[in-house]
Amino acid sequence: MGVEIVRFLEGGQKVWGVHQAGKVAPLDGPDSLSAFLNAGLLEQARAARGRGHLDLAKLSLCAPITTPCQIICQGKNYLDHILETGVNPKNKEFNLLFTKAESTLAPATGKVRRPAGVRLLDYELELGLVLGKAITAPTQITLENLHEYVAGLVMANDVSARDVQVPERQWFRGKSFRGFCPVGPILYLLEKADFAQLYQLDLHLTVNGETRQKASTAQLLHRPPETLQLISQGMNLNVGDLLLTGTPGGVAMRVKPKRRWAEIQDVFKSDKEKFARFVDEQAQSPRYLKNGDKVECTIRSRDGTIDLGKQDWVVEG
Amino acid sequence: MGVEIVRFLEGGQKVWGVHQAGKVAPLDGPDSLSAFLNAGLLEQARAARGRGHLDLAKLSLCAPITTPCQIICQGKNYLDHILETGVNPKNKEFNLLFTKAESTLAPATGKVRRPAGVRLLDYELELGLVLGKAITAPTQITLENLHEYVAGLVMANDVSARDVQVPERQWFRGKSFRGFCPVGPILYLLEKADFAQLYQLDLHLTVNGETRQKASTAQLLHRPPETLQLISQGMNLNVGDLLLTGTPGGVAMRVKPKRRWAEIQDVFKSDKEKFARFVDEQAQSPRYLKNGDKVECTIRSRDGTIDLGKQDWVVEG
Repeated sequence: MGVEIVRFLEGGQKVWGVHQAGKVAPLDGPDSLSAFLNAGLLEQARAARGRGHLDLAKLSLCAPITTPCQIICQGKNYLDHILETGVNPKNKEFNLLFTKAESTLAPATGKVRRPAGVRLLDYELELGLVLGKAITAPTQITLENLHEYVAGLVMANDVSARDVQVPERQWFRGKSFRGFCPVGPILYLLEKADFAQLYQLDLHLTVNGETRQKASTAQLLHRPPETLQLISQGMNLNVGDLLLTGTPGGVAMRVKPKRRWAEIQDVFKSDKEKFARFVDEQAQSPRYLKNGDKVECTIRSRDGTIDLGKQDWVVEG
Repeated sequence: MGVEIVRFLEGGQKVWGVHQAGKVAPLDGPDSLSAFLNAGLLEQARAARGRGHLDLAKLSLCAPITTPCQIICQGKNYLDHILETGVNPKNKEFNLLFTKAESTLAPATGKVRRPAGVRLLDYELELGLVLGKAITAPTQITLENLHEYVAGLVMANDVSARDVQVPERQWFRGKSFRGFCPVGPILYLLEKADFAQLYQLDLHLTVNGETRQKASTAQLLHRPPETLQLISQGMNLNVGDLLLTGTPGGVAMRVKPKRRWAEIQDVFKSDKEKFARFVDEQAQSPRYLKNGDKVECTIRSRDGTIDLGKQDWVVEG
């Protein structure tokens, strides 16, 4: 069984801690997650676990991921999400990668701010993997050696402004507004045996108490070993970098395939013109996040041994 | 007149230096560009300029940009490039942003490796801006206060694997192979007066001596102040981060608008199927980079005061 790392504010400083059964023991180490991982965070946390004297419920929690951090995301990685957005399901053949800016990182509890002018604010619950070893060359990665490269798991929300993301076609800006990646509250550092449960994690997200996303990592189309191997063929990853594994069905955006294709076939219109009606129509949907909406989500293994905690945030204008 | 910074190998170590008239004076400072910028690189370089005793021509040059580094790129920022790629010119209304991975950074001289299987290797000469001050909130940026945020200029190539970039639609992976961003050789740290020349820089790129790209920053559609202000509205930038301002016309890829649209209108095909013929046709073009091709490029102000040096690299398989 792994250890549960949290990060919290104490006297204006951000402090690392290890959590067990509602109690947190502070850890003494570098501010940077990558520096702390390299300096034996796992071993130190193992030793301090059970010595907690702070109440988790009373702590002001921070994101348990620190910058600098490359955030690499997979798109189109659950079939039901591909279908609901009107994308040709054959496109699941690509293991699609894009990025979010590091300034999207935010605590798992609190507020998510809607940027000025954004009408189509959407949630995307995702399992995040935190790198434990740098990857600097093409590397063969399998479920058997994955523990050498992945230090931990974290819950993340790939919050998205669909009215920026979709018309601009490149997704980076619409997914990179400040605070658009609530992460945590738990950074679960894995023991080797935990990897057996990687495809048995249940994801659940509600908006104002109504279930919107309910899925299992068993549904992942392109799994972490394949994905890290693909990334390794092209680029480097650093300790502490974050891989988001894509979101399952149930997001606010729903597009019928015919509607999607009708949009883009008028070659004389600009993308902004083409998508103006799309945005107006989508804005009629009650599913998009409104100010005051409360988003709660969890990721847990079926047997309860892996529990990434609970995200609980409210949209503010 | 600004100062010309270089970075080079000496006894297995990377060393900063200041260049003038073919001679380089080493500088003593932190490895990290952002740390050195914060610690007064400009002032130290000013003081050491003219004391150079090393021959620039004999140095083994490195990228004058260090990691961690966010590389944010503008797409569709020169009209002739929009037209040659078959994109609807109305789409110039978006100031399109995407990213390259930091492991793309490479020296301005040497080799660019073609990744296994890549057939459509393309060049994109671009002016790069290096951040000198962190941006952490929405900020009004104009040509008048740009000097507060931009420390320097650097030449960059946004090398692209079109056969990955175009079919996958999200451009990150096809533009993020290791070594796909030769930068330098000169990092030109600007004095305030230099900003008057920002839109009077000439870009020139040749392949095996044949001119392919020849343009002026006067043609930039979305200029640096507007672009940094847009970025500031959504995300943070760190000292030492890199903004690439887009490439002018003349890249290897050329697509007729009709051809481009024919590709994507068969809704029953996957993107991979749709673009298979596109890739095969493009691969017939003699313009794409072949192994052994030599790319040379320069960026200079018309009056010669700003000179970002010369990139000179060869494609290897």
